[in-house]
Amino acid sequence: MSLFRPSVDQLHGYVPGEQPQEPGWVKLNTNENPYPPSPAVVEAITRTAKDRLHVYPDPLGRSFCRAAAEVLGVEPEWIIPANGSDENLTILVRTFTDKNDLISYPYPSYILYETLAEIQGTRHARLRLNADWSWNTRLNRPLLEQTKLLFVPNPNSPSGNKWDAGTILSLVPQQGVLVLDEAYGDFADQPHKLELLRGDKGDRIIVTRTFSKSYSLAGLRFGFAVAHPDTVAAMRKVKDSYNCDALSLAAAEAAIRDQAWMLSNRAKIVATRTRLQTALTELGFNVVPSQANFVWCTHPTRSHEELYLALKARKILIRYMKFPGGVDADAAHPEGLLDGLRITIGTDPQVDAFLSALSEII
Amino acid sequence: MSLFRPSVDQLHGYVPGEQPQEPGWVKLNTNENPYPPSPAVVEAITRTAKDRLHVYPDPLGRSFCRAAAEVLGVEPEWIIPANGSDENLTILVRTFTDKNDLISYPYPSYILYETLAEIQGTRHARLRLNADWSWNTRLNRPLLEQTKLLFVPNPNSPSGNKWDAGTILSLVPQQGVLVLDEAYGDFADQPHKLELLRGDKGDRIIVTRTFSKSYSLAGLRFGFAVAHPDTVAAMRKVKDSYNCDALSLAAAEAAIRDQAWMLSNRAKIVATRTRLQTALTELGFNVVPSQANFVWCTHPTRSHEELYLALKARKILIRYMKFPGGVDADAAHPEGLLDGLRITIGTDPQVDAFLSALSEII
Repeated sequence: MSLFRPSVDQLHGYVPGEQPQEPGWVKLNTNENPYPPSPAVVEAITRTAKDRLHVYPDPLGRSFCRAAAEVLGVEPEWIIPANGSDENLTILVRTFTDKNDLISYPYPSYILYETLAEIQGTRHARLRLNADWSWNTRLNRPLLEQTKLLFVPNPNSPSGNKWDAGTILSLVPQQGVLVLDEAYGDFADQPHKLELLRGDKGDRIIVTRTFSKSYSLAGLRFGFAVAHPDTVAAMRKVKDSYNCDALSLAAAEAAIRDQAWMLSNRAKIVATRTRLQTALTELGFNVVPSQANFVWCTHPTRSHEELYLALKARKILIRYMKFPGGVDADAAHPEGLLDGLRITIGTDPQVDAFLSALSEII
Repeated sequence: MSLFRPSVDQLHGYVPGEQPQEPGWVKLNTNENPYPPSPAVVEAITRTAKDRLHVYPDPLGRSFCRAAAEVLGVEPEWIIPANGSDENLTILVRTFTDKNDLISYPYPSYILYETLAEIQGTRHARLRLNADWSWNTRLNRPLLEQTKLLFVPNPNSPSGNKWDAGTILSLVPQQGVLVLDEAYGDFADQPHKLELLRGDKGDRIIVTRTFSKSYSLAGLRFGFAVAHPDTVAAMRKVKDSYNCDALSLAAAEAAIRDQAWMLSNRAKIVATRTRLQTALTELGFNVVPSQANFVWCTHPTRSHEELYLALKARKILIRYMKFPGGVDADAAHPEGLLDGLRITIGTDPQVDAFLSALSEII
């Protein structure tokens, strides 16, 4: 007889993108930033490593909170740092939902939301999107009305599109909260400035951000949430006491204070994104106009999985993703299967290597 | 109406020991190691910071697992790293217990176990210890029989005593698992070598270790558990995908490979511990012989809280701890309140400063 929780026995577990540890790969599969972090980050880490490692960090990371609050124009009490944005998503699930509560999220989107609901053992539901990645609010209304915790990534993954503020506001559950996952927010043409938190429904919206993408710090595991102080206070009760280490707190503070570095890398990525979208279109792909640091595309006739494998054989990693039930079943999608390729925006040479290999294969 | 889970509304939340961020304190309150980590750790952090921060770490930390397995003489599949040992305790709660399951732990011991049970919303129970910190197995038998998850810190905190292997084995719940929290294990006269995991009940024992104490890395947030591969596999499903960052994985690997550095600091701490115990006894305290990097003592007549405050006024921080119901009520403890002072073993000059101040006060 298993001693594990039944919901753990049933779990398949989240499968992260491939992370080959040996060099030699063109790695365009997990939305990492191809440019290095700010030199101020490396300096902060080196200083802290020599000085403060034998003592515990500040359990609330207050120095980072003050820096982030200054940059974002909110009060420090609205900020809660975490060991990666994923940890804040876990903390939110544990702050708001019990077994009978409903967690919902658009589908296709970030697969982890469903995994988190399964780990917690709550009810959960996929909110179906239209084929053009827009919301069908009427269709989803009955589920939204029951929802306690709604996760909405904006821009969305894998599609890379961004929903406007009016759409987002219309989704806030009447009996629950909306988590606006802005992991890719800095790459949008008009990045959010947390305006939604100041409106009528602001105390039922939590915005999450990560340092893994725009700040080039996927290896650091650092993210933060911005929310009403009552929500931050509840989340603090749930989190591990010392969830952020001294190195990541110092590094993240240095990173957020160096906006110029982040914005300069962002500009390069946006320029490469435009070029990649054009090239993919010319190769016959359907490309969703992206507001993120990746591009989602589908080909009308070629097998996406075969393209992915042919690229992988050349040590070029992109992400092949499939979403059963992601679209209505029809002749092209007999089982309603939506699949496609998600390509991270790398450096220009990386994207050139990818395009050159793809041209040969296709 | 609150939108938080009822169990979160009711939570007080764990209160970690004071962590003043400004310099000038003699800090003997949170069992940090007064000596710096191995130079190899600082070197590994500096190297990783320059090289690998923009990409995700290995989600399973396999390179660390191989190093730890080599040092400990187990297979790498028996190891699971975490963002501090506290995170592994949280993962264990979420792997094994649902609402109706019973979590139990000795009392007084590490207060966090109770907080973790409250966050998860499970049943939980304190297992009373005898006044000399030994187990009353007969008294606790009915609770042990119902227990799904039993936490036992060994050496215990705040007392610093260590229970023998026979006692530990007698506690393994028949319908559950024992988590042997060896945060302070390296300071014991005979540190465990994981023998218990190889015995009959080995698949129902999980040993947790931390780098915060013996390896001087409280600022890093790194710990690991050693358990049967089936348990490790279940815990991996529950943990955040990338729970350990690239810096802490590299640092911990360097630290565990430099056993000589850790053992040398341990020897200094054990020598200072002996000296501190003798001095406290001479000052009239009752001192529990310690197997950890701290000492628990009580004074027959003086107020422990007043001593703590008088020391704090001199910028010397020790831990004043009180445990309502920690002993049977009698004339000396009318409400069954056990309280006392827990003093971390610092450097010799720190302990001298503490003893000198205490002599003046007392």
